[in-house]
Amino acid sequence: MAEPGAGMAADIAEQPAGYARLLEPAHAKAIAGVAAAIARRRPRHVVFTARGTSDHAALYAAYLTEIRLGIPAGLASPSVMTVFGARPDYSDALVVGVSQSGGSPDLAEVLRVARASGALTVAVTNDPSSPLAEAAELCVDVAAGPERAVAATKTYTAELLALLLLIEGVRTGTGQLPAEELATLAALPELAERALADSTPVELAPRYRFADRMVTTGRGYAYPTAREAALKLMETSYLPALAFSGADLLHGPLAMADPDVPVLAVVGTGPGGEAMREVLVRLGERGADLLLLGPSGAGPDVTGCRLSVPEVDERYAPLLDILPLQRLALALAKLRGQDPDAPRGLRKVTATR
Amino acid sequence: MAEPGAGMAADIAEQPAGYARLLEPAHAKAIAGVAAAIARRRPRHVVFTARGTSDHAALYAAYLTEIRLGIPAGLASPSVMTVFGARPDYSDALVVGVSQSGGSPDLAEVLRVARASGALTVAVTNDPSSPLAEAAELCVDVAAGPERAVAATKTYTAELLALLLLIEGVRTGTGQLPAEELATLAALPELAERALADSTPVELAPRYRFADRMVTTGRGYAYPTAREAALKLMETSYLPALAFSGADLLHGPLAMADPDVPVLAVVGTGPGGEAMREVLVRLGERGADLLLLGPSGAGPDVTGCRLSVPEVDERYAPLLDILPLQRLALALAKLRGQDPDAPRGLRKVTATR
Repeated sequence: MAEPGAGMAADIAEQPAGYARLLEPAHAKAIAGVAAAIARRRPRHVVFTARGTSDHAALYAAYLTEIRLGIPAGLASPSVMTVFGARPDYSDALVVGVSQSGGSPDLAEVLRVARASGALTVAVTNDPSSPLAEAAELCVDVAAGPERAVAATKTYTAELLALLLLIEGVRTGTGQLPAEELATLAALPELAERALADSTPVELAPRYRFADRMVTTGRGYAYPTAREAALKLMETSYLPALAFSGADLLHGPLAMADPDVPVLAVVGTGPGGEAMREVLVRLGERGADLLLLGPSGAGPDVTGCRLSVPEVDERYAPLLDILPLQRLALALAKLRGQDPDAPRGLRKVTATR
Repeated sequence: MAEPGAGMAADIAEQPAGYARLLEPAHAKAIAGVAAAIARRRPRHVVFTARGTSDHAALYAAYLTEIRLGIPAGLASPSVMTVFGARPDYSDALVVGVSQSGGSPDLAEVLRVARASGALTVAVTNDPSSPLAEAAELCVDVAAGPERAVAATKTYTAELLALLLLIEGVRTGTGQLPAEELATLAALPELAERALADSTPVELAPRYRFADRMVTTGRGYAYPTAREAALKLMETSYLPALAFSGADLLHGPLAMADPDVPVLAVVGTGPGGEAMREVLVRLGERGADLLLLGPSGAGPDVTGCRLSVPEVDERYAPLLDILPLQRLALALAKLRGQDPDAPRGLRKVTATR
């Protein structure tokens, strides 16, 4: 029998290669073609639909869509259509379903309803022959290869990069990325290797061996990372982890913070990281036990632990920031005697309606 | 000095009167006027923006908008505009800011940006002279009166009813509600009194005195109730409470469920409650300790505790379901030696950017 977590470890290690693969001409061209088709249709707003880990990739894409394209974007609740039978008019919209398996019936149903009302529909999936891909007019293959563990890692980062390429391609209108953006992205596989080579996450894991909960937080582009880190900890270590945007934390849940609750704060070097300053000060006042994730030097000078990642523009940071957090979740799960490859009660393809 | 929680108890008790007040001709007419103005503008999509408790009222309104009006709806992340300086094109949109105080600068900024790009903007607030109301073209006064406790209760339910009246008014086009809908709503104050008269929440509180976390779940209209219950427990009892839509729970966090984690499931009698059936079965398999909230007889025959509420259409259920949960949060906070009127680290008006 394989060592517990061997599958998740192998999936995690493949992420730099996954980035390199998506940036190869064959895949990049396919994504550029979808981007150009979207640009031609000029959607008035964008709706993403996803579940679990893919929901966090969709959230990242929603930030990108509003900030980089100036097009309003949001996340749909499938139950409106699948449970209550609503048929919203999506004729001005681009509707994007994101799912590694492409197998959940509710997401395919959202795309079918949207397409029938005149929306442009796109599936972003690791299985281009899945029901989700069949329901959509266009498909982006994230090409991550089969995932070994139930907890998604390499399909998450492949979705992030595919969505980034797609949205930046819509921005230029032709699907092609500007040369300088391509040059920055070309460094991504090597930066990801570097982020994964750091052993700090494994060294930090024992510190949380007996934690009975955790809070994660970030703002803007970093918020999806905080959400995905929380989900990964819950799925693999069964550690209840509450994710809040930095602003929402101040509107109530801050009351929970005390020295016995570890707080993971994702803090970049751009405006999102700047906006976390007040959050970190308020957490410091409450004596929270901080773990700061970001490039060395990012964020205010607070007492606490630190996970360093290579410094990149905040827009690319989610592609690197999640890597040490996946390793932390894996190491913590093993310390707690769990097998993160097969979490209790979970299946790889979750079919919800 | 007042008894701890006396303010929150008084706020909770005023909710039936708050419903009656909003249904009086003066307030109902004002809301109908805003609804008619929205109907004339025929927005192509609706964007809500809110923080904390009001975010859950906005989520309820997003479900109503899609199910009852067939117009795509979503929740905006203010940071896109306030932190990253994006200026999305909202010219086809109705943008609604929901906030009891109307005092958070980020929400007013979202309305200003949206209005400048041509959106119809509406403030739903307990303070019609607030910056949020000033930023918006139209304003709905939820008329709940000053709230005593930091934890929002009566302003939440007033926002729910105001948003329901607004959206149902858009549905008819004239702002006026159909007679049979008005007749159903006329019974609401008395049903709320009945829900608040039940002492079960206070009797149940000791059962969670030593709980170190809780999971809350619901689908469709019941999901905002699950979210708001979790926030109320976190703010007042400092009990970490994780809220998931029933479907999202199956996509990962189910792994956390075990006999030591109490699960609060909000289960109505309509399609949303029906869709919770599989979730409850899976939770049962994992030996979760269930607390079922809903009309007696709703949901499958599961082992666990029950909080009963009067039976109404699922669409109205959020107006009643939250009442016993507010009482549970208050009773639990007092049992834990906390003063829910003044939670540590929180202010009544939270200003985020």
